[in-house]
This record gives sequence, C-alpha cells and structure tokens, in this order.
Amino acid sequence: MPATRILGIDPGLRTTGFGVIEAEGATLRYLASGTIRTDSLPNGDLPGRIKLIFDGVSEIVARYEPQQAALEIVFVNVNPQSTLLLGQARGAALAALVSRGLTVSEYTSAQLKKAVVGAGQARKEQVQHMVMHLLKLPGLPGPDAADALGLAIAHVHVGSSQAAIAAVTPLQRRAHSQYRGGRSY
Amino acid sequence: MPATRILGIDPGLRTTGFGVIEAEGATLRYLASGTIRTDSLPNGDLPGRIKLIFDGVSEIVARYEPQQAALEIVFVNVNPQSTLLLGQARGAALAALVSRGLTVSEYTSAQLKKAVVGAGQARKEQVQHMVMHLLKLPGLPGPDAADALGLAIAHVHVGSSQAAIAAVTPLQRRAHSQYRGGRSY
Repeated sequence: MPATRILGIDPGLRTTGFGVIEAEGATLRYLASGTIRTDSLPNGDLPGRIKLIFDGVSEIVARYEPQQAALEIVFVNVNPQSTLLLGQARGAALAALVSRGLTVSEYTSAQLKKAVVGAGQARKEQVQHMVMHLLKLPGLPGPDAADALGLAIAHVHVGSSQAAIAAVTPLQRRAHSQYRGGRSY
Repeated sequence: MPATRILGIDPGLRTTGFGVIEAEGATLRYLASGTIRTDSLPNGDLPGRIKLIFDGVSEIVARYEPQQAALEIVFVNVNPQSTLLLGQARGAALAALVSRGLTVSEYTSAQLKKAVVGAGQARKEQVQHMVMHLLKLPGLPGPDAADALGLAIAHVHVGSSQAAIAAVTPLQRRAHSQYRGGRSY
C-alpha cells in the first residue's frame, strides 16, 4: 500500500492549527505541524484575518501536497457573534482546501479524541501526550497543532475501518468516500 | 475622474447574489448581476457548497476585474447552526475576494437600504425597484442580485461622502480607506 499524505486542520479565527502526517498501512509518520496566527492584526480587520487563514492553508497545501484533508467540525458558541466569526474562519480554511481539489473529511472533537486517546471526553493534555507518543515526537506539540495532527490520525483510523467495510460492500464505499466519518449538516 | 468598477456580494449558503457596476463621479453604469446557487448539491455536502461559492466569486472577479468590493454584513440567526453555516458561506466569499487582492468594504443591510431607498427599514421590493430605477435596468432584478447591486451603490455613496471629508482631512481618509462604512467586529 503506498503512503497517503494527510493534512489535519483545526480552524479558528485567532489560531488555526495544522498537522501533516503520512500513513503507510498502520505506520504513521510525522511530517509537519504548526499554527497559523492572525492576532498580529487588529480585531476589527476581519478581511485581513480571513486572508491570512486562506493564504496560510493554501501555502501548506502547496508545500506538503497532501492527498487528503481532515477538518474539525466546530460547534456553536454561547456568543452568537463568536459563532459567526468562527464560521467565517472555518469557511476560509475549507475554501483553501477545496479550491485546490482536496477531498475534505470532517470529524468532531469527540471523534478525534476517541481515535487518539480512546475516549471521546479526553482532556487537551491527554491528546497532546498521545499525539506525541503515536508520532514519536521529541516534545509536546502545542494544543492547536496536536488537535490538527489528531484529526489526521482520526482520518487514518476511520478511513481504514471504512475500507474494511468497503471490501465487503464496494458500493457503500463509494457513497461514503468523500465524507467518511463526517457529520452531515 | 476615471470610472471605478465595484463588485457587490450578498453572501448566503444557498444563494449568493452578485452585482457589478461602474461609477464615474455621480454616474452609475450597470455591468452584470446574478446569483450563485448551491442547491443543486445535497444539504450535507458543505465542502461542495463552499467550493461553488468560492469558485463562483473567483470567476466573477476574474471576468469583470472590479477594483473594489462591497460585502454585506450578515447577522446571527435565531438558529445557531444556521449562523455557523452562513458564517462559513460568507468566509468563503470573503476569501475569494481578498485572495485576489481586492479591498473589501462591509455594509449592513440598513446601510444598503438607506443608500438605495433612503430609509434603513425599506422592504425588499422597494430595494429591487430603486435599484432598477437607479441603474436604468429593463426589468426588476431578483432579490439577491438587487441586494448585491445595492451594496455596490451604497459603497459609491459612502465612498464619495468620505472622499469629501478626506479633502479636508487627508490623514483621516487613509485611516478609513480600507473599511470605510464598515462595522468593526
């Protein structure tokens, strides 16, 4: 089985985490991770922040050439205005992925935690530690980068379990191929 | 004064209105308008819809080469999930504008109505009629296209009143040049 390169994105208006791994069967290899920050810009400059997120994700796609992308499903905030802003940040990240022809799968935070830690209610530090362990990193990744790497790992897990189902029911696989594991809206 | 080409965008997940006008002093000239529709795709296909919006806005920018863009400020919905979806649609449209180097000004629906009809509480049909009248259109534009054209008209009005202020206080103009008329977040 050839190696598949997967980009995980944890979107946010201030910080957007990214992580790139390679999966070859059950073997995972770390390639890169980090955070796109927009807090150098004033709060009111929404177009500027959207541009930083779009350009940042585009640059990562161009540099690492992933074959697949995993994007976190964000949830509504108690503050509706924050929900609207978070939605716009996620829309810019998603636009950068799909405009470059990437297939985007979507996962909730609980799916991410279950895949990485084994429990949907895990704490942020547990995700950071397990991501460090699974990818043999020399140190703890930051929380945003750890989430993004965790999404890529979740994608490998869900993807391979669905591939096992697909071996039995090939037609079903086609129906799920684009949004496997993702929640529908 | 050379003509300025302005693109107005009224973003939405199902329908995104667009309108392009040219302003030469007080003279307005209609160039194009229409609607980007995503309802050919299933509801659950958010990445597909985001791609249609991003590609659609990008194509309009490439075809009509506007110098400036005016984007409607959307409001939170009673349904938080709808707010999140609308935010993502707006984020994709905004990403398409800024990734092509366009300066984006933001206006509320009330600013649009005030500029076109003269009252911030005008009905949708009044906006359609006044846009038809101001741009000498042969027929009523659709509601989304009328809103988008109205945004472009609002941008000309606010822009020229701020230019008049700028003639007195040149420094102030620079501070407002990028987000004139826009509400800050």
